[in-house]
Amino acid sequence: MKIKILKVLSNSEDFISGERLSELCGVSRTAIWKNINSLKEEGYEIETQPRWGYRLISRPDALLKTEILNNLQTEKWGKEFLFTFDEVDSTNALAKAYAASGKPEGTVVIAEKQRQGKGRLGRAWDSPKGKGIWVSVLLRPEIPPTSAPQISFVLAVGMVRALEKALGVNAGIKWPNDILINKQKVAGILTELSAEIERVNYIVFGIGVNVNQGKEEFPEKFRDNATSLKIALGHLVSRVQVFQAMLEEIEKTYNQYLEQGFSFIIEEWKRNSVTLGEDVLIIMPQERLEGKAVDVDRDGFLIVRDNNNDLHRILVGDVSLRNSQGKYA
Amino acid sequence: MKIKILKVLSNSEDFISGERLSELCGVSRTAIWKNINSLKEEGYEIETQPRWGYRLISRPDALLKTEILNNLQTEKWGKEFLFTFDEVDSTNALAKAYAASGKPEGTVVIAEKQRQGKGRLGRAWDSPKGKGIWVSVLLRPEIPPTSAPQISFVLAVGMVRALEKALGVNAGIKWPNDILINKQKVAGILTELSAEIERVNYIVFGIGVNVNQGKEEFPEKFRDNATSLKIALGHLVSRVQVFQAMLEEIEKTYNQYLEQGFSFIIEEWKRNSVTLGEDVLIIMPQERLEGKAVDVDRDGFLIVRDNNNDLHRILVGDVSLRNSQGKYA
Repeated sequence: MKIKILKVLSNSEDFISGERLSELCGVSRTAIWKNINSLKEEGYEIETQPRWGYRLISRPDALLKTEILNNLQTEKWGKEFLFTFDEVDSTNALAKAYAASGKPEGTVVIAEKQRQGKGRLGRAWDSPKGKGIWVSVLLRPEIPPTSAPQISFVLAVGMVRALEKALGVNAGIKWPNDILINKQKVAGILTELSAEIERVNYIVFGIGVNVNQGKEEFPEKFRDNATSLKIALGHLVSRVQVFQAMLEEIEKTYNQYLEQGFSFIIEEWKRNSVTLGEDVLIIMPQERLEGKAVDVDRDGFLIVRDNNNDLHRILVGDVSLRNSQGKYA
Repeated sequence: MKIKILKVLSNSEDFISGERLSELCGVSRTAIWKNINSLKEEGYEIETQPRWGYRLISRPDALLKTEILNNLQTEKWGKEFLFTFDEVDSTNALAKAYAASGKPEGTVVIAEKQRQGKGRLGRAWDSPKGKGIWVSVLLRPEIPPTSAPQISFVLAVGMVRALEKALGVNAGIKWPNDILINKQKVAGILTELSAEIERVNYIVFGIGVNVNQGKEEFPEKFRDNATSLKIALGHLVSRVQVFQAMLEEIEKTYNQYLEQGFSFIIEEWKRNSVTLGEDVLIIMPQERLEGKAVDVDRDGFLIVRDNNNDLHRILVGDVSLRNSQGKYA
C-alpha cells in the first residue's frame, strides 16, 4: 500500500487530496492517513495541507523496501524476497539461514548496520549504520562446486558495471574481487557456498560498499587502504541508487555468465584488473611471495612469476600492490 | 561409568561380586546396580546371581556409545564428540548443524534409523532401523573447495580398506564413490561442503552401509542393484565391528591424504575401481552417453571415450555398467 501511495504522490507535482488518493489506491481515507504517517516516520518528507491534501517533498536515502523497489529494473533479484533490517549480526549468516529454509534464487538480505560483518577468511568487515550498503544475495546456479570460483569473478565484473552505471565511476578490481577506486578499497565481496561434490546447493554472496563514510570514520587500521564513494566523488551519494544499480547489473552479469559461459567474464575482469601486469607481494597463510602478476586462469588462480622466473598458482592470499612511494601497501 | 563397568565385566570370565565391582569402579553398590540395570535395558545380557554377583553373557549389536568406544582405535574420530540416536531425519543434516555450531573435526553422528536419509543429488536413501550403519562425520580440512572432490575418493578408498579389515571382503568402487560387492551397491557416500571461495569451512560426509537386510527388505526399486553384507557373506554381520573399522580406516586414509597428497589415493582408487576399462552408460542431467570409461583425472572427473573416439569429462552423472546379460543395469 505504501508503495502505491508513494507512486501516486511521485507522479503528482502538486498537492493531491486525501479523497483522490483514497480513490486511486482503493482504500479508506483513514488508511491513507495512517500510511502517510508511517511513511513520515520512515523519513519521507510529506507536506500536509488541510484543504489541499498531501505533497511529497523528499524521499529518505534509506534502504527501505519502498525505496529499493521504486523502479527497480531487475528480472528477479529482490522482487520476490527482499528482507530489510535496521541491524543484524551478518547479512551473509541470515541469507544462509534463508537458503537452508528453501528460499529461491534472488532472495536479498540488506541491513542498515551489521554488528558482526564478515569479510574474506573470517575477517571483520566494518559496517556502520547508514553509511554503506551491506547486502547478501542468494543464488542457486546449476554448476559443480569446482566452478564456484568463477562466480566471484562474475560478481566483481557486475559490481564494476554497477558503479559505472550509477555514478560514472571507473572502479578497478584487485584479485580476487576487491573493488578499488584510486587504489583504495571501496567494496569487498565474500562468496560462500554449500554444495555436494557434484552440484552446488546454494551460493550466498555478500557485498559491502563504503558509500558515505568520511576518512575519519574508518577504523584506524583500514584507513590508509579504504575509501568511500563520497570521498572519491567529493559529495554524498544516494545509497538507494547505487544499490539498485548493483542488483540490476550484477543480476544481468550473472545471467550472461549462465547463458554464455565464463570466457567473456574473465576477459572483462582482466580489462578492469589493477593486479595483472603489476609487481605484487602475496601474503599467503604459510608464506610470502614477491613477483609479477601475469595472469588469472580459468579456475580463478592468480599466476605470479617470481624473480627466478618460476610461475606460481595462487588461490588463497592477500595481494599488495606498490603504492605511489613504490612500497607495498 | 557404564564403559568402566563393561570393561571390568569383559575382563572377567567368572562372576564378579557387586562389592568388587564397586571397589574397582569407585562408586557405590547402588550405583553399580543402577548401571547394570540400564545396560540390561540397552540389550546387554548380564547374568545376576545373589551370592556371586554379575557376569556378562553377551553384548548387543547396537550402535551404542559403550559399544562403539569399546577398543576404538582411532586417533580422534568419534572420541571427543560421538552423538548416537535411535532415530533422526538425516545424520548429514544433524552433522551440518553441529558443524555450524562450531564442533571440531572428527565429530560423529550415528543413528539406528533415518526417517529421511539422503543420497547423492537429493535422492532418498533407505535407512531402516537396526539394519545398517547410517553415519555422518564432520571434517575441517585446510583445503580450497576446488580440492573437495578429492575427499570423496579418499572416503571410498577408506571404506574399501575398512571392509577388507573387518570382514576380509574385497569391495569395488563405482565412480564416483559407490561401494559394490558382486556389482551390487552395499554402501553409498554423500559428501557435502560449506566453503568460501578460497577455503573450506567444513565438510560433512555421510555413509550408509547395508549390513543385515535380507533381499526382500530393500524397497522394490533398489532390489536388483542393492545388496547387504549379510547377503554377500551369508551370515549376520556385527555392525559395531564394521563401524569401528570404518572410523579407523577412513580416518587413517584421510590423514594420509592430508600428509602425502592425492596421488597415492587416486592410484588406490583406480586399483579398486570397477568402472575403469568398462563399457558404461552415463546418465547425466541433460543427456546420455555411451562409451568406455578410460580414466579419472585429478579433479575427480570421469573420462569417457565415446564410440567416435571423442573424450568426455564427466562430473555429474550416474554410471551404469553392463550386467551379466550384457545389458546396462
